[in-house]
Amino acid sequence: MSGAVNFRTCGSVLVTGASRGLGLQIVDSLASEGFSPGKIIATTRNPDTAQKLQELAKKHSHIHILTLDVVSQESIEKCAEEVGRLVQEDGLNCLINNAGINVMADYHSVTAEKMIENFHTNAVAPLMITKAFLPLLKRAASKGGAGSSGTMGIQRAAVINMTSLLGSVELNWGERANNFKWYPYRISKSALNMVTRCLAVDLEPDGILCMGIHPGWVRTDMGGSQAPLSPEESTSSVLSVIGGLTEKDHGSFLNFTGEQLPW
Amino acid sequence: MSGAVNFRTCGSVLVTGASRGLGLQIVDSLASEGFSPGKIIATTRNPDTAQKLQELAKKHSHIHILTLDVVSQESIEKCAEEVGRLVQEDGLNCLINNAGINVMADYHSVTAEKMIENFHTNAVAPLMITKAFLPLLKRAASKGGAGSSGTMGIQRAAVINMTSLLGSVELNWGERANNFKWYPYRISKSALNMVTRCLAVDLEPDGILCMGIHPGWVRTDMGGSQAPLSPEESTSSVLSVIGGLTEKDHGSFLNFTGEQLPW
Repeated sequence: MSGAVNFRTCGSVLVTGASRGLGLQIVDSLASEGFSPGKIIATTRNPDTAQKLQELAKKHSHIHILTLDVVSQESIEKCAEEVGRLVQEDGLNCLINNAGINVMADYHSVTAEKMIENFHTNAVAPLMITKAFLPLLKRAASKGGAGSSGTMGIQRAAVINMTSLLGSVELNWGERANNFKWYPYRISKSALNMVTRCLAVDLEPDGILCMGIHPGWVRTDMGGSQAPLSPEESTSSVLSVIGGLTEKDHGSFLNFTGEQLPW
Repeated sequence: MSGAVNFRTCGSVLVTGASRGLGLQIVDSLASEGFSPGKIIATTRNPDTAQKLQELAKKHSHIHILTLDVVSQESIEKCAEEVGRLVQEDGLNCLINNAGINVMADYHSVTAEKMIENFHTNAVAPLMITKAFLPLLKRAASKGGAGSSGTMGIQRAAVINMTSLLGSVELNWGERANNFKWYPYRISKSALNMVTRCLAVDLEPDGILCMGIHPGWVRTDMGGSQAPLSPEESTSSVLSVIGGLTEKDHGSFLNFTGEQLPW
């Protein structure tokens, strides 16, 4: 797994929504499975109730837990300051915008409020978080990464948005479309895909890679017990893909298997 | 222009955001240029200040002006009741979700508030308006349209969302991407494209066509004076495309020239 190798040359990774589900598993896998970046910064809205994350941090001294409420600008800015103190001159190498919600509603039950709530957390928050962390990402990118100045990837600086196949407008048709008629969620993830693409255009001059990845359908609180993938399986594959990202993946929408997905 | 012929067999068309720009031109063209649907319902937030629209309605007795604030659920429901009284048993044949705003902001100036404001007007409002008018659209669809029961099109029932090329995630890359770095607008239109697709899936069983169309870059208050198309040129082309829509266009994203655009 070339991905694992690259994480070992990556000074710091920040994961939002790390108290449970995929976020927790990403932190666990990063700490335990040979990915081993220098610092793992795990954020959650309420660290006091994030028991499993606290246990992980007790086992691994390079896990740092910070408070982040992704829909609060004040919280985002405070967290960015704290991360700045943690990473110092090295900057932040990899920001994984993982926090997300599914405000479940179909055609009949959807309301403007549900649409806006899901959009704020899943599409607006990753944008505002990336903006707040940009000085730290730029600092990391300006160092050029281990032995590869000018190239793109997590050894230098990257923004990874956890998106979903359900955000693909093209794939929302035929058989597939009838399975998950979740208006607020699908629409928030399409919006996130455009956020990713807009950011990719603006971060490119700084050498910061930006892309979106679909983690598969995973047995988490959100994915439910019917999902085919365990969190371990999904995360292992997702981290391998993230670790192996290069210029050619900049601005892309990839499946957890590494294949390109249609917008 | 087959489009024009189809509008003549279309009992009623509703256009939101009809006080100025493209919306006003659509109403004008529908009334004057041989499209001539039975009833033209023009909505605007504040009819009292919509002088040009009032003048049009004085000239053409089949133009009906109604109040609609697209971000107010109360206003949407009240408008749907009034339209119900206007169209009676015939139902509503064609809903054109045209009202839209551009909360202009680039990477540096974008805020969560700007993102949400643009999303609400451009993506959430068309969804909530379509929901409120669905009983009237269904009524029209159940009649099957002139001589074509079972087929789809504006002679039966259709929802048209005025979207934008700038909402294409795929096209937001390279040269093009550097021209219009409008985060809130682009992201709202990507979201609207997913709204269109979700609605198309759910409205299909009722025989209601749903699609999105890009009107081109037009010399309106929003488009600015540099735009290559006059409102008349854009509208004439857009109405011709809308008039000619059939099953094959259901769930599509078309340019004002009639060509398919990538998501």
